[in-house]
Amino acid sequence: MSDPADIFNKIPELNHEETLKDVSPESFDNIINNRRSVRVYTEEKIPAEVTQKVLEWALLAPNSSNLQCWEFYWVQDPKKKAELVKALFNQPAARTAQELIVAVAKLKTWKPHRRQMLDLFNSTHQKIPTSARAYYEKLVPVVYNQGPMGIFGPFKRIFISAAGLFRPVPREPKSIADMRVWSHKTTALACENIMLGFSAYGYDTCPMEGHDSARVKKILGLGCESEICMVISAGKRAKNGVYGPRIRFPSEQFIKKI
Amino acid sequence: MSDPADIFNKIPELNHEETLKDVSPESFDNIINNRRSVRVYTEEKIPAEVTQKVLEWALLAPNSSNLQCWEFYWVQDPKKKAELVKALFNQPAARTAQELIVAVAKLKTWKPHRRQMLDLFNSTHQKIPTSARAYYEKLVPVVYNQGPMGIFGPFKRIFISAAGLFRPVPREPKSIADMRVWSHKTTALACENIMLGFSAYGYDTCPMEGHDSARVKKILGLGCESEICMVISAGKRAKNGVYGPRIRFPSEQFIKKI
Repeated sequence: MSDPADIFNKIPELNHEETLKDVSPESFDNIINNRRSVRVYTEEKIPAEVTQKVLEWALLAPNSSNLQCWEFYWVQDPKKKAELVKALFNQPAARTAQELIVAVAKLKTWKPHRRQMLDLFNSTHQKIPTSARAYYEKLVPVVYNQGPMGIFGPFKRIFISAAGLFRPVPREPKSIADMRVWSHKTTALACENIMLGFSAYGYDTCPMEGHDSARVKKILGLGCESEICMVISAGKRAKNGVYGPRIRFPSEQFIKKI
Repeated sequence: MSDPADIFNKIPELNHEETLKDVSPESFDNIINNRRSVRVYTEEKIPAEVTQKVLEWALLAPNSSNLQCWEFYWVQDPKKKAELVKALFNQPAARTAQELIVAVAKLKTWKPHRRQMLDLFNSTHQKIPTSARAYYEKLVPVVYNQGPMGIFGPFKRIFISAAGLFRPVPREPKSIADMRVWSHKTTALACENIMLGFSAYGYDTCPMEGHDSARVKKILGLGCESEICMVISAGKRAKNGVYGPRIRFPSEQFIKKI
């Protein structure tokens, strides 16, 4: 394995600058606070442009190594939608929803996406840092490839543990289980953009982890390289759409200053 | 197992309404677009109130069954911070950062949090839907308990597969691996709030999955029931802080209309 330190810790000589646009914490506070898990929606439709924009926001989430290991199924076909509602146990957040989006974590698209990234580097006029090229060429295949049935895992574990005795080393992903965590984590970042995005447009959402993943995958025609991260429903909240005031335990339980 | 359909699909008779605050998609678009992974920060400090507020926004993310399986370590002690930078391979996004936050996924806090939820239900004057009480009393222990070393997993798998032949059933989590996915997924939703939250205040962030998780856990004094979801650095971007224009593959690759 290349020494990750070489790839990670040098600042490349580039001169890229971006114009920052106006933002306000007050507006974000409202978006965050308006967002509640809504269980019952009205019959008001969501304009297609809104859902499209929200899904495009999803794709702007940060993601692991920019390998974009996600997919978002916007289920529009009435028959498929009805089947999906059944796979969501007919819960009101699904059956009264105007839109249903299935967020899918992809375990193996890192391979073609790595290639796609290198092709992009080769075709652009932008200056690409040597470290970025080295990252995709050398490090990515070593880090993400777990071998057939995860057979490289035990070897990775031994190698990493040994190397880690002497210096800091990246330890994950070293198994198929880690690859699952990895792809769901990135997909979840995008899911939050979807929920906040709808909230920014004045629409509501509900993330549903309670679903029959095998049936959802069948409806979407997905195989074992895809996992259902969550299903997100959207619409306008009905009067009884939010079941009660938001409950959170005291923040000191979770925010640890050390 | 209680039939999840009974708990999931009835709309309780409640009359809770929330006042919605002003939001704008334009402002959210700016927050999303300003957010880039920043690798080099200036020496400008972030006011403590900003970081505190951002962390409180994290806790308002939707989360699985409201079991709040997350923790956020705001590392302030200079010695600990220096150690953390080392465990992040001394990468510029860490070593030039003003703040470092470690997002931790908790595999077992669902147990005390389930109890805490029921205690809250018992102490409140709010009307709690019977289905919510039943959910935490009956369903949560069955769904999340994997037994010592995950020993319940194979039995769950057989039971779920058999039951799933006849009707939709929730299939996950049925192993410790699934619990890892579960807790990281919820923690990642909160991480996105952190990154967008800093962006809303005009600050920058970088999520770092490339770290030595064993060393990071040691610095924080965490055991095997905790996993490092990601480390997020924050500050104001330096002139060379963003390495290049944002790269995303065409959205049709990821947004599937079916």
